[in-house]
Amino acid sequence: MATTETLTAERILEATEEVLRRHGPAKATVVDVARALGVSHGSVYRHFRTKAALREAVTMRWLDRTTGTLSGIVTEEDRDPEDRLREWFSALFAAKRRKAGDDPELFATYSVLAGENGEAVGRHLAELTGQLTEIVRAGVDAGVFTTTDPATTARALFHATGRFHDPVYAPEWEQPGIDAEFEAVMGLVLRGLRA
Amino acid sequence: MATTETLTAERILEATEEVLRRHGPAKATVVDVARALGVSHGSVYRHFRTKAALREAVTMRWLDRTTGTLSGIVTEEDRDPEDRLREWFSALFAAKRRKAGDDPELFATYSVLAGENGEAVGRHLAELTGQLTEIVRAGVDAGVFTTTDPATTARALFHATGRFHDPVYAPEWEQPGIDAEFEAVMGLVLRGLRA
Repeated sequence: MATTETLTAERILEATEEVLRRHGPAKATVVDVARALGVSHGSVYRHFRTKAALREAVTMRWLDRTTGTLSGIVTEEDRDPEDRLREWFSALFAAKRRKAGDDPELFATYSVLAGENGEAVGRHLAELTGQLTEIVRAGVDAGVFTTTDPATTARALFHATGRFHDPVYAPEWEQPGIDAEFEAVMGLVLRGLRA
Repeated sequence: MATTETLTAERILEATEEVLRRHGPAKATVVDVARALGVSHGSVYRHFRTKAALREAVTMRWLDRTTGTLSGIVTEEDRDPEDRLREWFSALFAAKRRKAGDDPELFATYSVLAGENGEAVGRHLAELTGQLTEIVRAGVDAGVFTTTDPATTARALFHATGRFHDPVYAPEWEQPGIDAEFEAVMGLVLRGLRA
């Protein structure tokens, strides 16, 4: 039945996620993915030349799911930059928390994949801090933020809030008091940004 | 030869650290510690009632080595609070970095022990944020810092700087640019604190 649909990269990635969910990152193979789709493994290799390329692509797809939500906040240029910055971090924290809380096994699987795909993670982080830089620059232009170097400040904001988005802290995200901690850190760094 | 000295808790803890260094956290036993000291394991148990108590004590001793250096900075009450705060975090970062860089295996061993001894780690973190609270309160009293809740602000400062003291980030501490990242985060949070 599956073979009657066109085999797209997206369908392969969906199936790969399912296979990863079932077998875990150590055991999932391209043959498992092909079997789940009812196609030959050669068909999978026509879209992703190696197993490593497939694993990197599925990792990027997982990471990009967060980036999409956030880019909408960046482009709302008529809104106060401080409000946007706060909302951007709230949305990032909410998205990470949901991923970790709703499906802890898949989250752990992707943590393993992220560890293997440093370059993909680097691109993802560069995209996120790039979004932040845009909001910081908008605040400087509007006269509400002060910094001589928006890109460095954006990275500092990202590092200062790591507790609320770095997957190593996922166990903390279910602790009582984490929302108050988030508010305290955000309050401190936003105050540090104000002109 | 070792038995001619009095068997103190400190000597047992020193020997325990050596045994942990040699055998790793999974294999180190009380019998190994007793053998290293040339005493019976009963003599060790007279100081530490269980293996778990010994492991917790050696973890606390490792953690407390950092706390001692820092408490000196807290008590220099004639110095500017902002200078003290910056120096406190620099000293904490330097101490952690030295521990991780000089003896990575022992650092990894203590990371395992810290994971087992959540209560000891909790006490250690409470002591550190307690020290920070004192400096923040001194800054508020001197009119150079602003916050209505020094303890919450101290925890926010600690969380915002986690990249520079949380052992999970140890691999980052040898990366080029980490000092500039530290300066950027410190600059941001100190600005957020200023009255």
